[in-house]
Amino acid sequence: MTEPTHRLDHDRTARVGMPEAVLCEGKQDRHLRAILDEVVARGAPMLLTRLPVEQVARMGLASLDGFVHDEESETATVHGGLPARPGLVAVVAAGTSDLRVATEVVQTLRFTGVRVEEHNDVGVAGVHRLLDRMDQIRAADVVVVVAGMDAALASVMGGLVASPVVAVPTSVGYGVAAGGTTALHAMLASCAQGVVVTNVDNGFGAACAAVRMLGVAATAAPRDAAEAAT
Amino acid sequence: MTEPTHRLDHDRTARVGMPEAVLCEGKQDRHLRAILDEVVARGAPMLLTRLPVEQVARMGLASLDGFVHDEESETATVHGGLPARPGLVAVVAAGTSDLRVATEVVQTLRFTGVRVEEHNDVGVAGVHRLLDRMDQIRAADVVVVVAGMDAALASVMGGLVASPVVAVPTSVGYGVAAGGTTALHAMLASCAQGVVVTNVDNGFGAACAAVRMLGVAATAAPRDAAEAAT
Amino acid sequence: MTEPTHRLDHDRTARVGMPEAVLCEGKQDRHLRAILDEVVARGAPMLLTRLPVEQVARMGLASLDGFVHDEESETATVHGGLPARPGLVAVVAAGTSDLRVATEVVQTLRFTGVRVEEHNDVGVAGVHRLLDRMDQIRAADVVVVVAGMDAALASVMGGLVASPVVAVPTSVGYGVAAGGTTALHAMLASCAQGVVVTNVDNGFGAACAAVRMLGVAATAAPRDAAEAAT
Amino acid sequence: MTEPTHRLDHDRTARVGMPEAVLCEGKQDRHLRAILDEVVARGAPMLLTRLPVEQVARMGLASLDGFVHDEESETATVHGGLPARPGLVAVVAAGTSDLRVATEVVQTLRFTGVRVEEHNDVGVAGVHRLLDRMDQIRAADVVVVVAGMDAALASVMGGLVASPVVAVPTSVGYGVAAGGTTALHAMLASCAQGVVVTNVDNGFGAACAAVRMLGVAATAAPRDAAEAAT
Amino acid sequence: MTEPTHRLDHDRTARVGMPEAVLCEGKQDRHLRAILDEVVARGAPMLLTRLPVEQVARMGLASLDGFVHDEESETATVHGGLPARPGLVAVVAAGTSDLRVATEVVQTLRFTGVRVEEHNDVGVAGVHRLLDRMDQIRAADVVVVVAGMDAALASVMGGLVASPVVAVPTSVGYGVAAGGTTALHAMLASCAQGVVVTNVDNGFGAACAAVRMLGVAATAAPRDAAEAAT
Amino acid sequence: MTEPTHRLDHDRTARVGMPEAVLCEGKQDRHLRAILDEVVARGAPMLLTRLPVEQVARMGLASLDGFVHDEESETATVHGGLPARPGLVAVVAAGTSDLRVATEVVQTLRFTGVRVEEHNDVGVAGVHRLLDRMDQIRAADVVVVVAGMDAALASVMGGLVASPVVAVPTSVGYGVAAGGTTALHAMLASCAQGVVVTNVDNGFGAACAAVRMLGVAATAAPRDAAEAAT
Amino acid sequence: MTEPTHRLDHDRTARVGMPEAVLCEGKQDRHLRAILDEVVARGAPMLLTRLPVEQVARMGLASLDGFVHDEESETATVHGGLPARPGLVAVVAAGTSDLRVATEVVQTLRFTGVRVEEHNDVGVAGVHRLLDRMDQIRAADVVVVVAGMDAALASVMGGLVASPVVAVPTSVGYGVAAGGTTALHAMLASCAQGVVVTNVDNGFGAACAAVRMLGVAATAAPRDAAEAAT
Amino acid sequence: MTEPTHRLDHDRTARVGMPEAVLCEGKQDRHLRAILDEVVARGAPMLLTRLPVEQVARMGLASLDGFVHDEESETATVHGGLPARPGLVAVVAAGTSDLRVATEVVQTLRFTGVRVEEHNDVGVAGVHRLLDRMDQIRAADVVVVVAGMDAALASVMGGLVASPVVAVPTSVGYGVAAGGTTALHAMLASCAQGVVVTNVDNGFGAACAAVRMLGVAATAAPRDAAEAAT
Repeated sequence: MTEPTHRLDHDRTARVGMPEAVLCEGKQDRHLRAILDEVVARGAPMLLTRLPVEQVARMGLASLDGFVHDEESETATVHGGLPARPGLVAVVAAGTSDLRVATEVVQTLRFTGVRVEEHNDVGVAGVHRLLDRMDQIRAADVVVVVAGMDAALASVMGGLVASPVVAVPTSVGYGVAAGGTTALHAMLASCAQGVVVTNVDNGFGAACAAVRMLGVAATAAPRDAAEAAT
Repeated sequence: MTEPTHRLDHDRTARVGMPEAVLCEGKQDRHLRAILDEVVARGAPMLLTRLPVEQVARMGLASLDGFVHDEESETATVHGGLPARPGLVAVVAAGTSDLRVATEVVQTLRFTGVRVEEHNDVGVAGVHRLLDRMDQIRAADVVVVVAGMDAALASVMGGLVASPVVAVPTSVGYGVAAGGTTALHAMLASCAQGVVVTNVDNGFGAACAAVRMLGVAATAAPRDAAEAAT
Repeated sequence: MTEPTHRLDHDRTARVGMPEAVLCEGKQDRHLRAILDEVVARGAPMLLTRLPVEQVARMGLASLDGFVHDEESETATVHGGLPARPGLVAVVAAGTSDLRVATEVVQTLRFTGVRVEEHNDVGVAGVHRLLDRMDQIRAADVVVVVAGMDAALASVMGGLVASPVVAVPTSVGYGVAAGGTTALHAMLASCAQGVVVTNVDNGFGAACAAVRMLGVAATAAPRDAAEAAT
Repeated sequence: MTEPTHRLDHDRTARVGMPEAVLCEGKQDRHLRAILDEVVARGAPMLLTRLPVEQVARMGLASLDGFVHDEESETATVHGGLPARPGLVAVVAAGTSDLRVATEVVQTLRFTGVRVEEHNDVGVAGVHRLLDRMDQIRAADVVVVVAGMDAALASVMGGLVASPVVAVPTSVGYGVAAGGTTALHAMLASCAQGVVVTNVDNGFGAACAAVRMLGVAATAAPRDAAEAAT
Repeated sequence: MTEPTHRLDHDRTARVGMPEAVLCEGKQDRHLRAILDEVVARGAPMLLTRLPVEQVARMGLASLDGFVHDEESETATVHGGLPARPGLVAVVAAGTSDLRVATEVVQTLRFTGVRVEEHNDVGVAGVHRLLDRMDQIRAADVVVVVAGMDAALASVMGGLVASPVVAVPTSVGYGVAAGGTTALHAMLASCAQGVVVTNVDNGFGAACAAVRMLGVAATAAPRDAAEAAT
Repeated sequence: MTEPTHRLDHDRTARVGMPEAVLCEGKQDRHLRAILDEVVARGAPMLLTRLPVEQVARMGLASLDGFVHDEESETATVHGGLPARPGLVAVVAAGTSDLRVATEVVQTLRFTGVRVEEHNDVGVAGVHRLLDRMDQIRAADVVVVVAGMDAALASVMGGLVASPVVAVPTSVGYGVAAGGTTALHAMLASCAQGVVVTNVDNGFGAACAAVRMLGVAATAAPRDAAEAAT
Repeated sequence: MTEPTHRLDHDRTARVGMPEAVLCEGKQDRHLRAILDEVVARGAPMLLTRLPVEQVARMGLASLDGFVHDEESETATVHGGLPARPGLVAVVAAGTSDLRVATEVVQTLRFTGVRVEEHNDVGVAGVHRLLDRMDQIRAADVVVVVAGMDAALASVMGGLVASPVVAVPTSVGYGVAAGGTTALHAMLASCAQGVVVTNVDNGFGAACAAVRMLGVAATAAPRDAAEAAT
Repeated sequence: MTEPTHRLDHDRTARVGMPEAVLCEGKQDRHLRAILDEVVARGAPMLLTRLPVEQVARMGLASLDGFVHDEESETATVHGGLPARPGLVAVVAAGTSDLRVATEVVQTLRFTGVRVEEHNDVGVAGVHRLLDRMDQIRAADVVVVVAGMDAALASVMGGLVASPVVAVPTSVGYGVAAGGTTALHAMLASCAQGVVVTNVDNGFGAACAAVRMLGVAATAAPRDAAEAAT
């Protein structure tokens, strides 16, 4: 028997609550097609990330049954998404160039059944644009901050909200900003307390982290209440 | 009037729910003493981090009113801690050398009123030691993983629990492990979905992140339930 | 007399037991063709690595006498391979994106006459997939682990087998994972004892290392037995 | 004739308007003493930077004629300073740990005859502390921002004032912040327009840059007015 | 209502005196077009940077009302520029390869209404070429030095003029010079006092910094004169 | 019950054949003492690495039952070592400064029961010193090369022997050699085929790798012979 | 008058003895053409480096008067070269992939009038190939070593010859070797005494250095002889 | 027989013309003493580098027969030096902090019998100080430039002399200059042609390179003259 080139982890959703998803970047077309064949056969919803419109065209994926592609985020879904979950996530992007990653957060959350509010182009070089929106942002259960260059938005946000702040550095920018290491390090070194960080451009991961955090509501609340009663 | 050398942000706890705390490393003794004088005068609880036992002795802090120092974590508290909050955090350390940071997480959480369970020296080179403890760890609302060197524990853990996983890289180790960049990058590049990361050795920040996440339980659950009804 | 542009080291196999091989990447087409002309004239088996299918087509290599190309690994052989040698090597790949490198290990070993078993897509984010296969993997004389991103598979494997573990970092992934330095450093910093590492994406080198190790069986056993008798 | 170990550039002030100064760090005590002997003999004002109180004591400098040391900034002057110049510089420090560098800016400017206003511990994690002070800061001709860690203060400031903003990264902090490269890169990648940057911890250089900028007032205004008339 | 993909900061010029400008690199064509549509509708002057001639052709921008493109600097303006301001800036480029960035400085300054003098290909490997031009360069209010590779021109210049020196590292060169980090670090480590630095290739930022500095003339001179009178 | 600060992995030797060992560096004295107390109580042999003579004196370890310290390698054993195993390892050190690490290899192998031959100060700047010794070195089953600076010895050795070559970079040297990254990278990039590498200064790991390789002799030979017969 | 985009340094050859040369990489076609027009008009010999065959075709340079291109080295000359000079340089390349750079050394030296001997593909993984050629190499006045990857050839060579050794790292290789930093650092950290190094891939610079060194023969010999007589 | 801890390469001087020398840094006192015992017994001249005055005192070396220590350069000689050789080397240091390294060049050359002229504190921030000395410097056969920080002196010098320029980066400075990588990279990226570079702080190596270059005078001149005659 031939060793297969992939093994889908079908019980991941059950085990850790994460969406079933495939990172398309770095995979050969033939491997991606083999995965999609299996997914279509199973009929379960799946998310595809880092799938640019050129690859969709080259592989003729648009004709695939139940396939929907989003150009802005370079994500796609097969067979829709997961049932709605409670909770609201604010996705705040510092600049227009951060939109690819910010909408990857948004699309992943929507696939997972989570409600999202977007706030675009509110970088701190014009800090009043951000302050004007804080009432709305404070209403979210989790805040995802997407920013490149100096990523100063993460620190300012961390000082303005009490909810979890997940910071996603982006690779936009040139010179020392190119590649996103500056944004990554600035977010890790944030002077605001308890800001947590993902890999550069990892919008998908930030959305997964938010899903994990929203799960705390379901599990923590009742049991802790009970414990508080003892 | 002279410009002061510090400005305590007394309403931070109210605004963002974070503990009032001072990072002692990098501050001159004279500046730290000025801060402590103000804290003692106010009488509110405060946490001090990265305060080694030698500095406590040099500055004679043991005689300070309401001052309690913990040698393992190099933290101290003045005037006790905050009231108990609901929620349970598991703090999982890969090796004995990670204990300084792991107990900084523990002490910060305890100061903040959060219940903690510790799991020490369960690195993945003996993966069965970890698997034996997973039932206990899965019961926690948030899992904090503290690991240096290759930090492989974060990925393995991320694949085993559905709760939020906050990964804290430590600077233990030598060669490419020295300074913690390898652990940091490995955690950021984790193959497990939705693992979030703090700065190297930032146990305090991981605890603050957990506090933010536990807050989701209180806010998200009722409102989202209502929304789900519409 | 003109200085030639290459000098094949024809007695390398005799001297150090390594396969005669040419790394095609970085060489001009005209230099590669000069090498192949000499190889074909000599009639001895040779391995070519990092030779993508586009270059095979551009240079018209398919019509070359005794030339066989493998698209997955981007390797080719001229005039078959070496005679079978004793020993079994397990090649374990963490993800589908690691297959280019993993099959370079496999093809190099097969060219060298070594028997190989492949295990694909068994990364530690679903650690039970790996544990299910350990009985098979433990039966191998040498284990080659191929992994990118956080490369946590190397440490977990190193704690589960007694045989030599050769870890090959791959350059798959984005952000801090891009280029493979994170995987490389994580493998070097492995908390498992005695894991050894090759350059990023160096599947060929890992196979050569395995060949060297399998040679220990032939040389060490009898002489050591004799020594033990004295 | 013996080659001397130093050559003071006595006409630098005349040529480029910069203060005569000696960087003490990295110099042997015997070389520093030779320089001071020459300075005292000449009787002209000189600034010494990076001269910690321990070295002052070890070398017995306190007894030197006209020598005044400032512990906070680790600077000293010999024979007072330069005559007062027009212009006002605001020196804004993000945290208490940035004071060594911030006061180096202040002391250098005062030595040079420039009026200074200090604003300490106004980091962006509590952005309202900063906004409350903006009226005062906007009144300055040049703003020097001193910050370590994520250095987000530089971008926020750059979006709030029209005057030149000189950003000085500091080496305070741990993990990715250690050494100041994160602060340096974040300042260079600032999303605010026209923020300029000095080397890490180079408070002296920032002050010199401010002095150069204040000189524009004297030269630019009248001549440009004349030109505008043609 | 849909969240927009950009928010132009129309009062930035009023607030911080900086030109209204759009960095085109890193933006999708559809986002850039949306911005231009808004700009054209408003009718106010705007600067576009990092807009190569290929993109102008691909998007058909030449037919846009009031659009003027400069190939050398890869900048464009819509609706002309700002009114003339007092002051003169010398833009000094070390080599022919630095011209893209140097002319970005020039075009930004001209858009902003500032008078500019260019000095090209005057690197320090032939230091007399530079010395011959110093009289002209000393007449400028601000000097912008654009250099890649070892960027030694910044230090030499800093020792020859009393006006502000803004150093712009460029990414030209190969080996250790590639990407501009060597030039950046050499400029930051300059042995000349008070040289300030921008991000690699950030000609736009250097021009903005010069504009900030020229503003000191207008504000500082009169008030300081008045203060000097008290 | 209190969570312990360490968990010795007592069945590691059985599971993966590796020696029971403790890395002392990075551990607090109180933690190391707790481990030693447990070791002494069990009575089984244990190896301690990176234990400098100063720490032995400070903690009074010399009086510990069955404790033997080696100053050159900074290793110690408690309760002797493991039974003799077949096989011979050559440990080849490039320079005198590499001896700390080279003797760590030697002491670990001797503790594990493996026979060792040392070859010191045979760097390639005098390549004939090395060539004179090759007959002896070729007789070993595994060759461990220990070298810092440019680590050229690993490549030369890899081209001269057919046995496995384990390369250990050391942190000796200054400038670009400091910390051992240059040696590490040079060994990884070796032009010789099949050289494998450990972390910087990881003599212990290299010895463990050799032990794994020597185990191939016992397992591979008979079974493969049988397979060859089918 | 318009500021020109370049300034040829026509008296460089007279001043520092270096060939008149243009680095084509990084220059726009229009700038390169302007330079060539001036060169052709002057009629003096000039060397062009990093000029790939594609650019020659695109710009139609083959039809230029006196233009000769060399594909291997990507250099070209206009109007021949300089008169013959005394001295012999050996250019030793480790591998076939180093030929682009090695022949850049050769072509630059030939343009400058220096006699050259090439030795290709003599890397240290087969050290006897090198030792066989040492008599020839020792006869040269200067030895230029061109090597990528681990660059071990530089150290071995430095230990075998008394003449100046100029080491040129190349960017060939992958993983940690990519870009040439490993080769560069290994050469700088060479255990052989007095090996000097150029930038990565800087074959032109190595040739210029050799020309400088050959000049020592003309100047040093007679005068020193005279001095020895006093 | 015990393997010794060192092997002096006594015929190195004969083979490659380099001085017999020991790098003391990184060696244990016991190893250094063993080397010195052998040196004293042989009676031949030897140079010791990186031997600070504290180690001389701690080991009581002052009483060693024929031992002379130089505090400035931290070098020592045993049994004098080598006979005088023809040639003159100019050693040019940018700043007072570079003196440790510059005098290491000087002492090594003097030990080797070469005549030296020193030029101290002539950095390019005051370029006229350098230009005033060029007539003297041009008279040297080889120029060694020692500089830290931005190391701009190397490029300026390379444009002013025709003789070989050996550039030695130093680790002086702070921020991005700390450790000397900036100086190293700036020197490698020098815009002046044919400047060659050593490792950071490697004054000894620069002197050895100069010795190799001075040897060209003896060998190249007569033979080349003969060849020119054919």
